[in-house]
Amino acid sequence: MSQPVAIGVDLGGTLVRVGVFNLDGQLLCQNETSIASVGPVNGLSLIEHLIRESLDSVNFPTLLGIGIGCTGPLDTIRGLINNPYTLEGWNNIPIVERLNTTFNVPVRLENDADAAALGEYWQGAGRDAKRLYAVTVGTGVGTSLIIDGKIYRGVDGSHPEGGHQLIDPNGPECYCGHRGCWESLISGSAISNQAKSMPTMDARSIADAARTGDPAAIAIMQKAARNFSLGIINIISFFVPDVLVLSGGVMKSSDLFLPTLEKALKTPNPMVPFDRVHILPATLGYYAGLYGGAYMILSEAK
Amino acid sequence: MSQPVAIGVDLGGTLVRVGVFNLDGQLLCQNETSIASVGPVNGLSLIEHLIRESLDSVNFPTLLGIGIGCTGPLDTIRGLINNPYTLEGWNNIPIVERLNTTFNVPVRLENDADAAALGEYWQGAGRDAKRLYAVTVGTGVGTSLIIDGKIYRGVDGSHPEGGHQLIDPNGPECYCGHRGCWESLISGSAISNQAKSMPTMDARSIADAARTGDPAAIAIMQKAARNFSLGIINIISFFVPDVLVLSGGVMKSSDLFLPTLEKALKTPNPMVPFDRVHILPATLGYYAGLYGGAYMILSEAK
Repeated sequence: MSQPVAIGVDLGGTLVRVGVFNLDGQLLCQNETSIASVGPVNGLSLIEHLIRESLDSVNFPTLLGIGIGCTGPLDTIRGLINNPYTLEGWNNIPIVERLNTTFNVPVRLENDADAAALGEYWQGAGRDAKRLYAVTVGTGVGTSLIIDGKIYRGVDGSHPEGGHQLIDPNGPECYCGHRGCWESLISGSAISNQAKSMPTMDARSIADAARTGDPAAIAIMQKAARNFSLGIINIISFFVPDVLVLSGGVMKSSDLFLPTLEKALKTPNPMVPFDRVHILPATLGYYAGLYGGAYMILSEAK
Repeated sequence: MSQPVAIGVDLGGTLVRVGVFNLDGQLLCQNETSIASVGPVNGLSLIEHLIRESLDSVNFPTLLGIGIGCTGPLDTIRGLINNPYTLEGWNNIPIVERLNTTFNVPVRLENDADAAALGEYWQGAGRDAKRLYAVTVGTGVGTSLIIDGKIYRGVDGSHPEGGHQLIDPNGPECYCGHRGCWESLISGSAISNQAKSMPTMDARSIADAARTGDPAAIAIMQKAARNFSLGIINIISFFVPDVLVLSGGVMKSSDLFLPTLEKALKTPNPMVPFDRVHILPATLGYYAGLYGGAYMILSEAK
């Protein structure tokens, strides 16, 4: 009794995850392993192995295809990973062609923020939202716009980077080439960089210190919360999405971030219906990218 | 020999314009009149009169429909003008129903920024661009996103307001409820407000003074140009449009604005392909809204 399934792959700088999904969107099985510094040759073999292992643990699978969410930059049209910054040595790596040859099924590659947003659209917080905007705040800040279940792309299939919107001309310099972008002010690394008097603390420890009343930590988190709010306000002004899904480390500090945002959004705005945008935490957690990968395949198969 | 035509109407705070277009996108005839402070009752009669007059000057017209671009806020779905701010007394005015009853043809109503962008998409600088983003800087700052010839709308048909993106937390307060939005820093009124030592000067005179070497005027225009660039950079980061069309007063000062923008866009950005976005001046000038109005009808009739 054959069972049609799709594979979702989430390829990050540290871990690669593989999930097997049935047509109902159930995650039948999930496997993960470290991929840090193994390089593309061993890395691709590792991914193939993980896919085979995952399929083996499912009864009578008929593989429909493989959808990959990967940390960018990517060339999603030609199926190339061009990200030696996060994945050492992965420059012009034709992952789509390789997996297509090995497994003889359709393979899709998308930016990890887009994959996670697709997952939340399919089975998570943004289910069936006509316009879904997703923001992930972690080491960096990733964004994605899903319109009617499809990824919004820029010219030549490029992935927009709302995380690099400029919100403070006096902010710090960023690798994006500009000063005061959102990521440079609210990412995990931005928050820990601001703790000059606490040089060994990461964003999580600073958040914990703020909760216990440390004044310097409170000031840092309040500033980050204000800057977080400015970027969210801009996203609403530009897109007025039905649903805005938040994920990543920021949601672990949501008690410190969200009250400031809620207050900012209550400011009466005669131009844009801020109150009609649902701001929701992501519900699929670490698995959002896997769901999105499978959806890339299943939405085409329909 | 009957000739199928569409009417475009551009309804602003000062003037109403009416244009008659054939299927090839030719403007066959155009009429305009003042509508300032006449109120909605006389205003609607005036518009009907202008439409009849315009049709009378065309040979054997068969009217296919009427598309209106109007200064917002509007309820485009129910066809209502809700803009007592710019059009005194025009609150909940059912212009679509009224013209539909009078002329017995389909009538569409859209925000004026969207109408102008549709016009530029159809017959202007953004012809056939897959993703067209339009920015009009005048008394205020209007924006519009056209994807595959269709207006991008927010939740409940709302019109996004990229002109109110926040770019400077130390900027001036705006009626949008926030501080340092783009409009509050670069609009015509923002520029003249900054000339405290030259209280009687409008934005145009300040631009002229900057050109003749007045240091205070140069400083104001340089600051406005920098802020203009920040907002454009954000639009590119968020949308990566194929074409970005600029119109309004800012283009009259393009010699003062564009060099700063060009320099900012040359900053290498590893994330977003800034160099692939075509930034172009609008080509339809005051008539963009008329073209867009006609296109609302003709694109449906196809």
